[in-house]
Amino acid sequence: MDIVRIGSVGLGRLGLRHAENIAHAIRNARLDAICDVNAGALRETGERLGVSKRYSSYEALLADKDIDAVVLVSPSALHTGQIAAALEAGKHVFSEKPLGTTVAECKKAEKAVKAHPDKVFMLGFMRRFDASYRWAHDKVAAGEIGKPVLFRAYSQDPEKFIAGAIAFAPHSGGEFLDMCVHDIDLARWFSGSEPETVYAIGGCYAHPEFGVYADGDNVSCLMKFKNDCMAFLFAGRTAPHGYNVETEIIGTKGILRIASVPQKNLVEVLDSHGVRHECHENFLERFEAAFAAELTEFVSCIREGRKPEVSVYDGTRVSEIASACKSSFEKGDLVRF
Amino acid sequence: MDIVRIGSVGLGRLGLRHAENIAHAIRNARLDAICDVNAGALRETGERLGVSKRYSSYEALLADKDIDAVVLVSPSALHTGQIAAALEAGKHVFSEKPLGTTVAECKKAEKAVKAHPDKVFMLGFMRRFDASYRWAHDKVAAGEIGKPVLFRAYSQDPEKFIAGAIAFAPHSGGEFLDMCVHDIDLARWFSGSEPETVYAIGGCYAHPEFGVYADGDNVSCLMKFKNDCMAFLFAGRTAPHGYNVETEIIGTKGILRIASVPQKNLVEVLDSHGVRHECHENFLERFEAAFAAELTEFVSCIREGRKPEVSVYDGTRVSEIASACKSSFEKGDLVRF
Amino acid sequence: MDIVRIGSVGLGRLGLRHAENIAHAIRNARLDAICDVNAGALRETGERLGVSKRYSSYEALLADKDIDAVVLVSPSALHTGQIAAALEAGKHVFSEKPLGTTVAECKKAEKAVKAHPDKVFMLGFMRRFDASYRWAHDKVAAGEIGKPVLFRAYSQDPEKFIAGAIAFAPHSGGEFLDMCVHDIDLARWFSGSEPETVYAIGGCYAHPEFGVYADGDNVSCLMKFKNDCMAFLFAGRTAPHGYNVETEIIGTKGILRIASVPQKNLVEVLDSHGVRHECHENFLERFEAAFAAELTEFVSCIREGRKPEVSVYDGTRVSEIASACKSSFEKGDLVRF
Amino acid sequence: MDIVRIGSVGLGRLGLRHAENIAHAIRNARLDAICDVNAGALRETGERLGVSKRYSSYEALLADKDIDAVVLVSPSALHTGQIAAALEAGKHVFSEKPLGTTVAECKKAEKAVKAHPDKVFMLGFMRRFDASYRWAHDKVAAGEIGKPVLFRAYSQDPEKFIAGAIAFAPHSGGEFLDMCVHDIDLARWFSGSEPETVYAIGGCYAHPEFGVYADGDNVSCLMKFKNDCMAFLFAGRTAPHGYNVETEIIGTKGILRIASVPQKNLVEVLDSHGVRHECHENFLERFEAAFAAELTEFVSCIREGRKPEVSVYDGTRVSEIASACKSSFEKGDLVRF
Repeated sequence: MDIVRIGSVGLGRLGLRHAENIAHAIRNARLDAICDVNAGALRETGERLGVSKRYSSYEALLADKDIDAVVLVSPSALHTGQIAAALEAGKHVFSEKPLGTTVAECKKAEKAVKAHPDKVFMLGFMRRFDASYRWAHDKVAAGEIGKPVLFRAYSQDPEKFIAGAIAFAPHSGGEFLDMCVHDIDLARWFSGSEPETVYAIGGCYAHPEFGVYADGDNVSCLMKFKNDCMAFLFAGRTAPHGYNVETEIIGTKGILRIASVPQKNLVEVLDSHGVRHECHENFLERFEAAFAAELTEFVSCIREGRKPEVSVYDGTRVSEIASACKSSFEKGDLVRF
Repeated sequence: MDIVRIGSVGLGRLGLRHAENIAHAIRNARLDAICDVNAGALRETGERLGVSKRYSSYEALLADKDIDAVVLVSPSALHTGQIAAALEAGKHVFSEKPLGTTVAECKKAEKAVKAHPDKVFMLGFMRRFDASYRWAHDKVAAGEIGKPVLFRAYSQDPEKFIAGAIAFAPHSGGEFLDMCVHDIDLARWFSGSEPETVYAIGGCYAHPEFGVYADGDNVSCLMKFKNDCMAFLFAGRTAPHGYNVETEIIGTKGILRIASVPQKNLVEVLDSHGVRHECHENFLERFEAAFAAELTEFVSCIREGRKPEVSVYDGTRVSEIASACKSSFEKGDLVRF
Repeated sequence: MDIVRIGSVGLGRLGLRHAENIAHAIRNARLDAICDVNAGALRETGERLGVSKRYSSYEALLADKDIDAVVLVSPSALHTGQIAAALEAGKHVFSEKPLGTTVAECKKAEKAVKAHPDKVFMLGFMRRFDASYRWAHDKVAAGEIGKPVLFRAYSQDPEKFIAGAIAFAPHSGGEFLDMCVHDIDLARWFSGSEPETVYAIGGCYAHPEFGVYADGDNVSCLMKFKNDCMAFLFAGRTAPHGYNVETEIIGTKGILRIASVPQKNLVEVLDSHGVRHECHENFLERFEAAFAAELTEFVSCIREGRKPEVSVYDGTRVSEIASACKSSFEKGDLVRF
Repeated sequence: MDIVRIGSVGLGRLGLRHAENIAHAIRNARLDAICDVNAGALRETGERLGVSKRYSSYEALLADKDIDAVVLVSPSALHTGQIAAALEAGKHVFSEKPLGTTVAECKKAEKAVKAHPDKVFMLGFMRRFDASYRWAHDKVAAGEIGKPVLFRAYSQDPEKFIAGAIAFAPHSGGEFLDMCVHDIDLARWFSGSEPETVYAIGGCYAHPEFGVYADGDNVSCLMKFKNDCMAFLFAGRTAPHGYNVETEIIGTKGILRIASVPQKNLVEVLDSHGVRHECHENFLERFEAAFAAELTEFVSCIREGRKPEVSVYDGTRVSEIASACKSSFEKGDLVRF
């Protein structure tokens, strides 16, 4: 296969970004079709990106024999069903996180993937494709920081987007499932181990609206892994400064901190506010290159007959752990795996 | 009282620093006497600092009517007994942390302090006197960061001093009582609240020697406070880079990070290792000015008939919390206060 | 014109990068042909990038009617001749800096460009396409830093590549023409003015080899611009830490510093060397995205019939200024424009 | 001599700071007398610091046989006369910078110092006593950065104090003599050499008031030293962010940057302005510890019969160089020494 022909499903903010990347920035890929229930978005995007195949029905997309692979950026609750259908239709599948909204759903996806061993399935844990995370992981894997002692991760969304977060609250699954899954994936990736216990706390510090869904606007948890590595995760929706994703891996011989200053770019501003960096606004800005890199890897896997580093089982495992966090948060007690 | 005449007890590393400060850097104070069981240290320090009163017996020091106050930098297990005796002898008392090695011991100190309301008693939580911590606390107190969401504190000692830490392990009381008490004090100071639950974990990642004392070389805990504030504390003895004490207070409107780069000074070095700051070696270097500032406050309190901000009850409370952390760590379960 | 068909000339390090970008990362462009005198490079690159048109003769490339544009990454001394020939052959031209090795040569290029007003000509001042420089320039243009007071720029190559720099010394034209041209371009871009005087100094601090060519291994100059803005440029070939390009614009109301810490990525390393960032190795790594962005703009200009922001006259002007710097350096005296 | 009895002359902002330091923070020193023409300041400071000897006449102070040393923080134009008179009266002398307002004046001070070889004379170049500068100088002296290539220094005062700077303009001697003398001292100290040429430029970018005195609000100069070291100095009165004194020494093997982020303290603030450090307000805040350290050294020199590192000849040399900068700035031409 020379050029991988892709159908991109879902034209929301991130879906659009993926579609644009496939159209222009992913080598050996072609954006052959787009699919969305929104007719306006379909037309507008199709025209702008020069895509003539525009499907309002997912089934029609799957029936298109000239499509090699689908990229799913649909609502989370649809993921596992769409994954199974696409594999059944003979397509390779890239799905945005989370794999599914429940562990039971994830298991269905596992089954579908297992039934199609010749197909590539990849999950959108794009942080693994960020140059800084990759560089840090190489160092950890090479033993340069010794034995992992503590993994710490923050995922914070800016307060200024709180209205959107509140609107999405009924469907988000809560902060652990919505925001911490990336950090849970990273914790397993960097520590090379699995959690044994978790204690999760948090609350509504500024926005009681989340309480209705047994969720908080800021939450955290402490986990102990089988290899003794500790992990502290913090997720918040009220960051005053911007979009903040930072990660630290403390080892016995070295410490790595990724993006501990969430600077938008390389410009330092000195003015009446002091010496400062402005911050990223959102994940699209921060992980711009990583979103392109993960799809490049997806396409390479298809062309080279390789399997991606992240498997469907990782997706299930991350959902299990996030669910345990949520359970601990709700019960106010320790959860043991 | 014009000049406060001080007897300094204990001439170890920190005791010596306090003695030197009293001799040279604390206004309105005079180092009138020193006390230590080590005759050599007594003579050497006495000569160097020009102190002629050199006591090898604590009782003899207390019997000296010309001494207004004592500064206790003796082994932790002696603190509460020495505090009571000094107050009984009519001296003002500054004691290094911890107040006592058990909560029961702390209660004895409380009783003694309560019995001498005319005397100044102060505990050595010097971080509160560091200019950066003070500045941050002023901002928090003024409401500039909104409601406290998460308090995070690291206290790390350099790996290169591990031999000393191992030698001290039988007497340290464990990392929570030995190292985290400062952070527990800060957590209460910044959050303005008290913990309700704690889950503590950790282990021996590099040095199994600590396991003999049911201790770890790196530990952490997650606490929930009554006002919902979360607190994550981490203490380690294997820091590869140097002495690292950093603190973060995340609020709903602002975030403050104190010493998140533990830089030794203002010099940035650019060489074959990259762009870098060298780090502090130990607490004496990092908190040099704070150690002088706290004794300046102690002397001012005596002269002005004021009571210090930190009371003996804070000392007990911190010990109770550290003990709960230790208990959680040992049991592997959540502890509720 | 839908897709711009490009012939890339010169397959050295930067030439290769441009060719790869055109092949994979520039939307609406196609790498249609490559040209180099080195048969091995031609074959290897052609195979790797899937380019079947491989020219060892520049004239043959120009004779190819299916080529819309050429990208020149040839030796500097060939630039102006190749520019004129390409324009004459009806091609759009992107040329790497410098425009020419002498001002007289630059004037020839000017003449050729003037004679073909329907063709796009663009010079490779890629820093203008770096996201941080662009963001800073937007702020300056919007008046956010007030009146420009001082422009400061460093361009440093790592000591570890000194052997290559020494080998190239006979042909480099000296540090001002070889390295400072980017900074001279930026100084004019940010200040919006032209220099009136320059005083340049420097020497061979580590490598006397450069002295043979009346050059130094580290040089600097101070310029005064017509609008009073001061400019200090420093170029060096012995940077101990890596590739360092930093720029500062001091205004009456604000200051912007671009890349004052030349960090390779977002990872902070804490180890026995302190707290540090590793640095970029070379311009390809630092300006990876900018090299793609400038060619994207070149292609867009061609498709949209626009002219790029940088004109051929800017190329001449930069060469004139660099020559004046060199002259000041050689004479040891002030030069007035 | 056990305790050095000091008479402090001049109770302006810096004079007051010196007086307070002598009274409270300098070991083996006593503030025995104060001297000022302002009766109110004399009384208020005398009462606050507990100094009963309060002289309104400098001659009366010198006649006091119980005074061992004077600290001169008087108007610059009085320095050399007061230095000579004090030495003549048998006092040790510490004088604030500049040594004198003209080179001829400086020569008079030289003569007086030479005539009293048994007395300690010290000039207030306090930056040499800042811990970061000291640490950097030790590294340079130990050869850790190789041969010095470029010395760069910024001295910037905040725009918010511009009214005071304008009021002082008639007496300041201009930015080179008023602000750059510290940097000139540092340039000689770090490079270990003397300048051969200087080219100085600048202007009134925001405040034409300085033009009346042939001065600018922002100026800079480029110097070449005898050992080939380059030096770039920049001084400004319109810093938007605060008090900024930063220094860089680029060597062939390493680079040191002192205070390149002029952060007020160790607190990083993350809020709607981004990630930021607030800045120092003025020299008293930035060099608080250095002002105490230099007087500690002055007192030690007196007690130990040593001479300070900085001699009166350094004071003259710095004035000569600053005058040459001023001359170049005024003539708009290169000046050779």
